[in-house]
Amino acid sequence: MSTQSNEKRDVRSGAAARGLRVAIAGATGAVGEVLLEVLAERAFPIEELRLLASGRSAGGTLRWRDREWMIHEATPEAFEGIDVVFFAATGALSRDLAPAAVERGALVIDKSSTWRMDPGVPLVIPEINPEALDAHRGIVACPNCTTIGVAMALAPIERAARLSRVVVTTLQAASGAGRDGLDTLQAERAGELAKSSPFATTLHDNVIPLCDALAPDGFTAEEQKLRAELRKILSRPDLPVSVTCVRVPVAVGHSSSLLVHTERPLDPVRARTLIADFPGVEVASDPSDVPTPRDVVGRDVVRVGRIRKELDGRGLWLWQCADNLRKGAATNAVQIAEALIERKLLG
Amino acid sequence: MSTQSNEKRDVRSGAAARGLRVAIAGATGAVGEVLLEVLAERAFPIEELRLLASGRSAGGTLRWRDREWMIHEATPEAFEGIDVVFFAATGALSRDLAPAAVERGALVIDKSSTWRMDPGVPLVIPEINPEALDAHRGIVACPNCTTIGVAMALAPIERAARLSRVVVTTLQAASGAGRDGLDTLQAERAGELAKSSPFATTLHDNVIPLCDALAPDGFTAEEQKLRAELRKILSRPDLPVSVTCVRVPVAVGHSSSLLVHTERPLDPVRARTLIADFPGVEVASDPSDVPTPRDVVGRDVVRVGRIRKELDGRGLWLWQCADNLRKGAATNAVQIAEALIERKLLG
Repeated sequence: MSTQSNEKRDVRSGAAARGLRVAIAGATGAVGEVLLEVLAERAFPIEELRLLASGRSAGGTLRWRDREWMIHEATPEAFEGIDVVFFAATGALSRDLAPAAVERGALVIDKSSTWRMDPGVPLVIPEINPEALDAHRGIVACPNCTTIGVAMALAPIERAARLSRVVVTTLQAASGAGRDGLDTLQAERAGELAKSSPFATTLHDNVIPLCDALAPDGFTAEEQKLRAELRKILSRPDLPVSVTCVRVPVAVGHSSSLLVHTERPLDPVRARTLIADFPGVEVASDPSDVPTPRDVVGRDVVRVGRIRKELDGRGLWLWQCADNLRKGAATNAVQIAEALIERKLLG
Repeated sequence: MSTQSNEKRDVRSGAAARGLRVAIAGATGAVGEVLLEVLAERAFPIEELRLLASGRSAGGTLRWRDREWMIHEATPEAFEGIDVVFFAATGALSRDLAPAAVERGALVIDKSSTWRMDPGVPLVIPEINPEALDAHRGIVACPNCTTIGVAMALAPIERAARLSRVVVTTLQAASGAGRDGLDTLQAERAGELAKSSPFATTLHDNVIPLCDALAPDGFTAEEQKLRAELRKILSRPDLPVSVTCVRVPVAVGHSSSLLVHTERPLDPVRARTLIADFPGVEVASDPSDVPTPRDVVGRDVVRVGRIRKELDGRGLWLWQCADNLRKGAATNAVQIAEALIERKLLG
């Protein structure tokens, strides 16, 4: 279906002046594991690596690059002498420890939702808004895994024709809820009882239109995040974004069904070219070669397809898939670090 | 989650003046099997039952109501002396044989897509447009399984506030593609090779935004059906209906994510009351009790939830689930027969 040669991956890591002292908080989680893989693949310039986790996992070891690494407890002192920390754990850990890391001179790249909407924190997808990094005050936030795929598909349309309205239904993988999410789906598939399910009900052989907690306005936290983050990343604070988020029984790979309207006319042929030309995005040449989660697992590319004009209006339909653990999380975080190096903000 | 007592099922079958001579064409398929269950459950007045199938299945037997029934080949002559035939097989079989059944005096209730858009054929959901039955000329069509759930959720809104625009993303179960669809998903889950998959790619651990063939306008046949059928059922030939249909790894139970606009203002509280009061529809009292496919399997009710006003516009979001083999197919077909009896058009 898709070809690896289309991967417009831009390995910039070699540009660092010197090796960096790197910490990972949440090294044992679903995103932490992929983060270690991505750092190795991209030859990120690491002089020293410190793996941190909650007290529960501390004391154990983790294999990386043919070596066993000790896992230390994430404490304020653990960030002493560190250049850059990737927070790949819970929002609570980021809230408690990111300021302590910054105080000790480390730059924080945070995958949790804690700091994303803070006006002093850049929220960055390096292909879209790397210039936002210049205003950082110690913390840079990585968007939600769902937001990244949607934003990558929409950024070329925003630039060419200015979005006037976005309607999204997401179909999100179990791993979007972390290792507990993955373990729950695997247990349910095997007919076993899941230990601590993050889902409202059984996910196997089901779909659940409830990701995260419901607010009084009837929207879930996940839906509100997608709307707020998309507005911030695209610098469109008033963009109408209407969202339903759904969990589907897929291990890895988030999808979204998107209907967008633009201020300036944009036909599907031109939209297709714009999206295909955008870095990090791939559009299949055959319309029947539709993106699916299985196509993007283990890849960094965001795949877009089903680009067509609606029959009764001026809107454009799109369909988008991305690996929520890679481009949706780990890869985007490493790309942020690479962009910081390139902009001489790190290293 | 849901309570059986809310089931507003209306068992009317007892109203028939006499037992009917009934044939089922496609008795061995996924819908045929459920049709036999529903006929038994609702005590449909059957004096004689003739089970028909393609040459491949003919000659075998099928157990129903503690008896073995011979399966005969579906031929024009097989409809001799029959009052009502349920076609629950392929479109080709309906196209070839429905006229022969009508010529022999049988009334045809067709579950295939063949006759649905024929101006001389009523397309009926008995809770919504039973009056359309009065104009039948021998064939009555049952809508697509996806259309039925969507129409049941929207009909009360259409009546109260008149729809001006419908945006839908469906999440459709494997059994919507018949027994091959079900068998394929089960085989894939077991790590086996599926014999004859109706899907574009692997469905297990995946979602596929391609149901049925792609037309040159970029929409699939399934998407075009939903739009055309919804317009016909609601008698709104120009209603803007914008659709993306997605296959999900669920055995039974279609869902849809719906964003609707109305000509007259309609707040979510009123919408909720209207939908809850509509026959055959159930709305949970707790907003976090969201409908899922697992909730509706084996039930005739259409469940609706996540009713809320969008944050940046006047649209209403809804989420809907229904058992695609029951209300989406077999139950609706039997309800059509019951409505025909009640209107003295059959029996």
